[in-house]
Amino acid sequence: MLQSPQSFRLSNGLLVIVEPMLDVQSAAVTLLVPAGGVRDADGRCGTAAILTEMFTRGAGGLSARELSAAMDNLGLQRSIHVGNAHVTFSAATTADRIIDALPFIGRMVTEPHLADEEFEPARDLVEQSLMSLEDEPRQRLGKVLRQYSYAAPWGNSSEGELTDLPAITNEDVRRHYQQFIRPDEAILGIAGNVNFDQIRETTETAFGGWESAPVSDLAGGTMPLSPCHIEHDSAQTHIGLGWNTVPYRDARYFEAWASVSLLSGGMSSRLFTEVRERRGLCYAISASLSTLRDEGRVFAYAGTSTERAQETLDVTVAEILRLHEGITEDELQRCKARAKSSLIMQQESTTSRASSLARDMYHLGRVVSLDEINSRINALSTTQVRDFTIEYAPKAMVLVTIGPHALNSACVTSLS
Amino acid sequence: MLQSPQSFRLSNGLLVIVEPMLDVQSAAVTLLVPAGGVRDADGRCGTAAILTEMFTRGAGGLSARELSAAMDNLGLQRSIHVGNAHVTFSAATTADRIIDALPFIGRMVTEPHLADEEFEPARDLVEQSLMSLEDEPRQRLGKVLRQYSYAAPWGNSSEGELTDLPAITNEDVRRHYQQFIRPDEAILGIAGNVNFDQIRETTETAFGGWESAPVSDLAGGTMPLSPCHIEHDSAQTHIGLGWNTVPYRDARYFEAWASVSLLSGGMSSRLFTEVRERRGLCYAISASLSTLRDEGRVFAYAGTSTERAQETLDVTVAEILRLHEGITEDELQRCKARAKSSLIMQQESTTSRASSLARDMYHLGRVVSLDEINSRINALSTTQVRDFTIEYAPKAMVLVTIGPHALNSACVTSLS
Repeated sequence: MLQSPQSFRLSNGLLVIVEPMLDVQSAAVTLLVPAGGVRDADGRCGTAAILTEMFTRGAGGLSARELSAAMDNLGLQRSIHVGNAHVTFSAATTADRIIDALPFIGRMVTEPHLADEEFEPARDLVEQSLMSLEDEPRQRLGKVLRQYSYAAPWGNSSEGELTDLPAITNEDVRRHYQQFIRPDEAILGIAGNVNFDQIRETTETAFGGWESAPVSDLAGGTMPLSPCHIEHDSAQTHIGLGWNTVPYRDARYFEAWASVSLLSGGMSSRLFTEVRERRGLCYAISASLSTLRDEGRVFAYAGTSTERAQETLDVTVAEILRLHEGITEDELQRCKARAKSSLIMQQESTTSRASSLARDMYHLGRVVSLDEINSRINALSTTQVRDFTIEYAPKAMVLVTIGPHALNSACVTSLS
Repeated sequence: MLQSPQSFRLSNGLLVIVEPMLDVQSAAVTLLVPAGGVRDADGRCGTAAILTEMFTRGAGGLSARELSAAMDNLGLQRSIHVGNAHVTFSAATTADRIIDALPFIGRMVTEPHLADEEFEPARDLVEQSLMSLEDEPRQRLGKVLRQYSYAAPWGNSSEGELTDLPAITNEDVRRHYQQFIRPDEAILGIAGNVNFDQIRETTETAFGGWESAPVSDLAGGTMPLSPCHIEHDSAQTHIGLGWNTVPYRDARYFEAWASVSLLSGGMSSRLFTEVRERRGLCYAISASLSTLRDEGRVFAYAGTSTERAQETLDVTVAEILRLHEGITEDELQRCKARAKSSLIMQQESTTSRASSLARDMYHLGRVVSLDEINSRINALSTTQVRDFTIEYAPKAMVLVTIGPHALNSACVTSLS
């Protein structure tokens, strides 16, 4: 049983949104703090990533070991992730222990030690993580595709840049913390078998001392020009494509969702049947929506052997361009059926609900109920979706490839 | 609310185990058929993998498109996976539609077309998937580590071998289907908001016509000798270690679980704090249990830059060998707390429950309730766990590395 979410704001500005779920025994929290990679200073790309590594290394008088022992003791499954917009703290455990867990999350966020002796190991790990991308071309492709698709700082790599790391100091990390780890635009989502009043009291105690400070605006930048090819000695080629669509907050977002779902939403979707099943061109192919608050993109990926890469690119782009052709009621109906079952499953996961609550508040300033999503998806007509695919047909496409040699990009460059 | 699972057997031998979960709206199924990679004939490694690709390509008079459209129409999230022991069919959707979905799964399993014209594209995809491992050294390491840790056919690659693929024909695939896709030792697990009698009736209809045939015993084989190094041109080195432990069915399995949990069960676990946090040696490090019905292994993984690889290997092995030292009540308590919250979350996921039901029946012939797991874990003492780590301390270790050059393996070879 899902109750309506309730929200409140602490006097320091932290927005808390709570959805009690009385049929479950677990509880989950997601804290979004607008201190992600977009806030890294020029030539210091990786500061937010190092800071993210530092939160667990001692806080509020507890050493790194004491802190992680205390949280493990509560069975707290947790992670801290640096994204472009946010540093995100996620955690989940049994509902009866979430009240004891919140103060530890509060300590990490509001009183991290950021000790000098922890800085080098933290920076080393960020460096290791970036170097490991060399052996993960698919992940690397995602990073580069983003850089070519969103203007700086939104296209910046939130994981950092190897060339910038040596210049970053613990002073930079502390400054990043002071400037951006602030409650003013932070959002805490909580879902599970919890009591609203008790959550309210606990968050006051755990986060009430977090000092407010205004967050400055971001300056816009530029982005490099596609196509981009990265040499990689392998018999495989990885292909990434990106084009414009509407962001999550847009009134037409669900039309965008349906159009990507037609392309890549299930085993009967167009890319899967045409490129993978019928032609056997590549093992992995997918398309998905990426959204900032004010901009959206569709990103598509295909990984294949180098000798099939050109055909894979050409066929994939052709499928994308003919998306408006022949959209049937049946096809749209299948997208709706898939959406329904995936919404039901989300509703049964406290982790997924906590993160949706926080995400909705960030993008929309309100929570969209799963019922509302379901009815908006059900209301979509084929005409609406076709009109959208025509209006938002790619007028330009970003192409990034990783492999032994560049592909002929005529199918993409001829668009502009 | 969880009810006790109930099971029944169809006259053809198929074992069905159902756990009604009345607080959820979804339902999930897992079907294990003992037709995995261990059944591939000599020199035909990949037959089961190709067959797995063929199930979706038309069945029971429906073309590939009709079949996938029908299942997408029911919102069915699904996958077919080839493992060593089993080909596994997994599916989930809303509870009200699972009854309509089961007959389609039944058709795929009992009446696949296995048409000649679908064979080449299916084999091509298996080939593509194997070739893509070149760009995924971590996945490749897992495959090789298994080959060096379990004697054939259990160490065989269920994904197939590139060198064997050209020899495999559709005749081989059909023979594999005829011999091994049989109900006699197959297990169907179902969890969710379902009615037992209705499930019983539907499975009779959907799987009742599946013809029984006895499944032959497996002949044992040998395995190659560790250490193994695979040359890979990169600045990264991937390290895999394996050693013996007890299988899931063993009375001491939970002691094995606790010992791996001490090593790698959370952020306060030994490998994480010693190798990653304190020394900053590598970004990714983990250890986990692998289990066949009669044998078990611990597999450990570390990925790092090549210049730190030797130290990472030495430190990791040293931590593994000193596992019995200084196990405290607090340390074990943290493992128990983590287990409790992860059990609660599993209990809230129909997909996870369906797969546990089938897995328990395969390994144990009965379902272990989450309460039983919880109480067996709670009953563990530090003495018990320490005794286990001493008795099952690695007497020999398998070492597999992928990177620009081999490491000094003295820390491993000196054990035997």
